[in-house]
Amino acid sequence: MASKPPVTPAFSLAIDAMGGDAAPEVVLDGLELAAERHPEGRFLLLGDEARVGAALARRKRAARICSVRHAPDTIPGDMKPTAALRIRGSSMRLAIDAVAAGEAAGVVSAGNTGALMALAKIVLKTLPELDRPALAAIGPSARGDVVMLDLGANVQCDARNLVEFAVMGDAFARAVLGLTTPSIGLLNVGSEELKGDDRVRAAAETLRDSHLGANFRGFIEGHDITAGTVDVVVTDGFTGNVALKTGEGALKLMRDLLRQVFTSSVPARLGYLLARPALDRLREWMDPRRYNGAILIGLRGVVVKSHGGTDALGFAHAVDVAMDMVTHGFNESIRDGMAKLATQSRALPV
Amino acid sequence: MASKPPVTPAFSLAIDAMGGDAAPEVVLDGLELAAERHPEGRFLLLGDEARVGAALARRKRAARICSVRHAPDTIPGDMKPTAALRIRGSSMRLAIDAVAAGEAAGVVSAGNTGALMALAKIVLKTLPELDRPALAAIGPSARGDVVMLDLGANVQCDARNLVEFAVMGDAFARAVLGLTTPSIGLLNVGSEELKGDDRVRAAAETLRDSHLGANFRGFIEGHDITAGTVDVVVTDGFTGNVALKTGEGALKLMRDLLRQVFTSSVPARLGYLLARPALDRLREWMDPRRYNGAILIGLRGVVVKSHGGTDALGFAHAVDVAMDMVTHGFNESIRDGMAKLATQSRALPV
Repeated sequence: MASKPPVTPAFSLAIDAMGGDAAPEVVLDGLELAAERHPEGRFLLLGDEARVGAALARRKRAARICSVRHAPDTIPGDMKPTAALRIRGSSMRLAIDAVAAGEAAGVVSAGNTGALMALAKIVLKTLPELDRPALAAIGPSARGDVVMLDLGANVQCDARNLVEFAVMGDAFARAVLGLTTPSIGLLNVGSEELKGDDRVRAAAETLRDSHLGANFRGFIEGHDITAGTVDVVVTDGFTGNVALKTGEGALKLMRDLLRQVFTSSVPARLGYLLARPALDRLREWMDPRRYNGAILIGLRGVVVKSHGGTDALGFAHAVDVAMDMVTHGFNESIRDGMAKLATQSRALPV
Repeated sequence: MASKPPVTPAFSLAIDAMGGDAAPEVVLDGLELAAERHPEGRFLLLGDEARVGAALARRKRAARICSVRHAPDTIPGDMKPTAALRIRGSSMRLAIDAVAAGEAAGVVSAGNTGALMALAKIVLKTLPELDRPALAAIGPSARGDVVMLDLGANVQCDARNLVEFAVMGDAFARAVLGLTTPSIGLLNVGSEELKGDDRVRAAAETLRDSHLGANFRGFIEGHDITAGTVDVVVTDGFTGNVALKTGEGALKLMRDLLRQVFTSSVPARLGYLLARPALDRLREWMDPRRYNGAILIGLRGVVVKSHGGTDALGFAHAVDVAMDMVTHGFNESIRDGMAKLATQSRALPV
């Protein structure tokens, strides 16, 4: 694995074939799409051998790059993480075990989020250079895609954690968004240097003096996330989780109101029909499936959580993110960043 | 004032006539509208006597209920609060002084936010029952208006502060939204009882056992704000500030994209024209002017900050909020709530 001399794993990804609302069918439909995009990928499917094998046999492209391994159990969507940890034969657990054993470089699951996070942390463990892993996601902004982290893996964070999140976010934006010098912002209540608490001020000072200093844009505010002021938004897990869900809630409110507007009268319905091609492009651009996948980063292996209710296209997007991380040496990039940070004059705040 | 035996102040509100981008003209246009809505109100205008007097003379309705008092200075929009504190003859300072002296029950200013918050806190002081004041605002949701606090007055908060914010938010929703039993939610990263940090869990426990217990809906998440799950959203100033600005940013992104959609083609333009009456109703419903006014609550007097760039309608809305607070005994309601809390079995966390 990551800490041993690099051996190319037999499989690019281990897939929890039983995770998600309509598994294994939607998972396999997603892999059928992924097979087109990643013909060089090799996927190990964990799940009920009979069901998954039969479903795979019906999908020619996926069948070419997938192997099935039996997992006797499935973790229900509402099971507590503590209970999930005790089920050793679950499809999710065996998929993570395959990564820990060096058989696969990463895992994708549309199953129980809490269980995946708990299992991945315990089985895969945090990269030795880091204090804690973080949960990241990609979202839309007026100026292109934005990476935000932490989204809830760490409810309480200190300055050191925030600096590590910046290093991880930088590596992620390089690997997945394909940016060479992603800009980084630290979420705060104002952009002036004196704003915020000691924690964000200490993190900002360390980042300014680090190898990321040239791309560090200092403090940003909530409205900067969707404005696309920076490529990487760094924040603690409490604030990040609330900000993500508040932004999603605001967009949902607007969508619901627009639906009301366009069904409120005959002229409005007609107006909708005329503007529909343009509105469809907008819908496609903001499609949640395009942004499917919460990524638990900082572990010894790539871990991507697909939304449990997504469709094949959404699952395929989650696979895209995981493949980008695997093929662009994401974890090596984090380790490089942390090594640079360690040699810099100003030590990390502890 | 509030701590002395109640004496009805001569003026309902003291108005900083020189605050805001287009003062005093926009302020006086706002008061002309306010005079229609509050014919029983009495407003003391602080500002350059010649300019404000001349502007007032041109507005008949406002002239009937406003008096002008000279203020030799004006606080610029970009002045640091520490510098603003030293200008003793500013229109903002003299307006706040009028509240401190018991001449007016509250103050409205569209001037420098930081200066207003600093001056109000120092001159008016916090209600003796409370630990700290908070910044609140009203926003739109799918199920009616929602009050949120704190929005940035307190970057670091403990459980006691969160409980006080709930008491203040309850009083505010009664006075300004006219609700008899406003529902209250505590912002967290999940709605389960075990989620979040010690601080939010301790605050939730105190609220559950308090006189607000019946209306306390426990933990809510970011998306609940715009869903209108509760009438009052309680959170710390860091999270609240980020959430507010993130939500505003998401709505702005959507508006900008819709503008692009409706100008992208001839059919889309035509569609816009047909749907326009319904879209105009939506725009009116979400009009930022309707939600103008950040309210610094918990001080010995009502303090409302109007947006500096708003127009007459927006300023009149800020006056509405202040008048609602003044006439519905807002501060008495907070003191009642705090007194009830003090007598309840479970003491406030310290």
